Amino acid sequence: MTDAEPGTVYLVGSGPGDPDLLTVKARDLLESADVVLHDKLPGPEILERIPEERGEDVGKRAGGERTSQAEINERLVAYAEAGKSVVRLKGGDPFVFGRGGEEAEYLAEHGVPFEVVPGVTSPVAAPGVAGIPVTHREHASSVTFVTGHEDPTKAESSVDWGALAETGGTIVVLMGVGKLPDYTRELREAGMAPETPVALIEKGTRPGQRVAAGTLDTIVDVRDEVGIEPPAITVIGDVAAVRDRLEAYLR
Amino acid sequence: MTDAEPGTVYLVGSGPGDPDLLTVKARDLLESADVVLHDKLPGPEILERIPEERGEDVGKRAGGERTSQAEINERLVAYAEAGKSVVRLKGGDPFVFGRGGEEAEYLAEHGVPFEVVPGVTSPVAAPGVAGIPVTHREHASSVTFVTGHEDPTKAESSVDWGALAETGGTIVVLMGVGKLPDYTRELREAGMAPETPVALIEKGTRPGQRVAAGTLDTIVDVRDEVGIEPPAITVIGDVAAVRDRLEAYLR
Repeated sequence: MTDAEPGTVYLVGSGPGDPDLLTVKARDLLESADVVLHDKLPGPEILERIPEERGEDVGKRAGGERTSQAEINERLVAYAEAGKSVVRLKGGDPFVFGRGGEEAEYLAEHGVPFEVVPGVTSPVAAPGVAGIPVTHREHASSVTFVTGHEDPTKAESSVDWGALAETGGTIVVLMGVGKLPDYTRELREAGMAPETPVALIEKGTRPGQRVAAGTLDTIVDVRDEVGIEPPAITVIGDVAAVRDRLEAYLR
Repeated sequence: MTDAEPGTVYLVGSGPGDPDLLTVKARDLLESADVVLHDKLPGPEILERIPEERGEDVGKRAGGERTSQAEINERLVAYAEAGKSVVRLKGGDPFVFGRGGEEAEYLAEHGVPFEVVPGVTSPVAAPGVAGIPVTHREHASSVTFVTGHEDPTKAESSVDWGALAETGGTIVVLMGVGKLPDYTRELREAGMAPETPVALIEKGTRPGQRVAAGTLDTIVDVRDEVGIEPPAITVIGDVAAVRDRLEAYLR
């Protein structure tokens, strides 16, 4: 060990899963970094490109337990202090529901230089590739991303579904398969029309991508009939019906 | 001319401006497509990579007039019917305030096959690279994108700023430099705290990137003092202050 300058940590978004939707920068960093810390979220098609001797899965430990966030933070700092260039690979974009903000704060507190490498974010890309534009001049002048899978230590949902219904824009829920009955009910109770189109996208942009469509009233039944499995993206709003007009010509 | 199969139109996002934030797929398509229709939004660093003989600027006509959307739609169909592979390059992501949805609908109506190639979206990436995570477990459990520059044919704003204030999440305004006084006033009137952090990011991810920070109460003055020019991204919410803690270690 020397007193050399610390290495840089790159907080890198892997995009929605299709390796061709990696950014040029992310792809280059995966090839050049000394070590790549990742979990399973980037998906197998991307993870299999990381050379085995440089990849480190911090999503699971040997015993099946998850590596804690504190432990991940410490490893990032330790590698950087040893002078290594470190990629912290996150599914989608590192700052969209990925705890990238917390990791960046920890690095700064410990004097470790870091760079943010944004990725293609799944709540835009998964609908887009499936023919659903999250904004549309005629249908939605805003789009909101929320997570359906909140911090389990919180007593109640901090998402104000009523306010979201009031915006009149598209709502995209990440990790929202399990709680679909809860938030569709909250949106209906807040006055959102029961016939509002809703789409679920499983494995968006990846092999085996599946889309299931319904309305605020029917989507829970559709989910169960089709057997949509997490993780999936939920799109709520008139744009979800645009796919019907596009599907036949989508490649 | 033959009755050959029509070519494919690729609706491609160019990302926020840094050429290294192009996706691998976008970069490959820019090299292989027969023709690339673009405007100025992708930014000079990306546009200079398009071979001159294959690029077509549909943002401006010789006389300084904009090519109409109808004309762009017709050109896309004409090239595809001539069997060419066509890239329609859009700044950011094609489906985030880019009229990509309308172009896709026109292509489908005219029987032209197309593919959506998502890009890194500026309202996530420009803040991210500047050290602002648009979501954060402690500060924001949702993020909404709106545009400050609405269709001028609309009589009044269709954005419900009061409802957006109620969500409690981060608000990111695209093309919102000019109307900053209007929507910051609407948000204050809707009850948002005057000390809510706000940041403006000009040329995000590009050479000459500038960030100006203030609060809901001060940001209009800050904009004028710093001389922030459009296009820029406005970030409203507690996350805008996270940059203060990160800035010294950001690379």
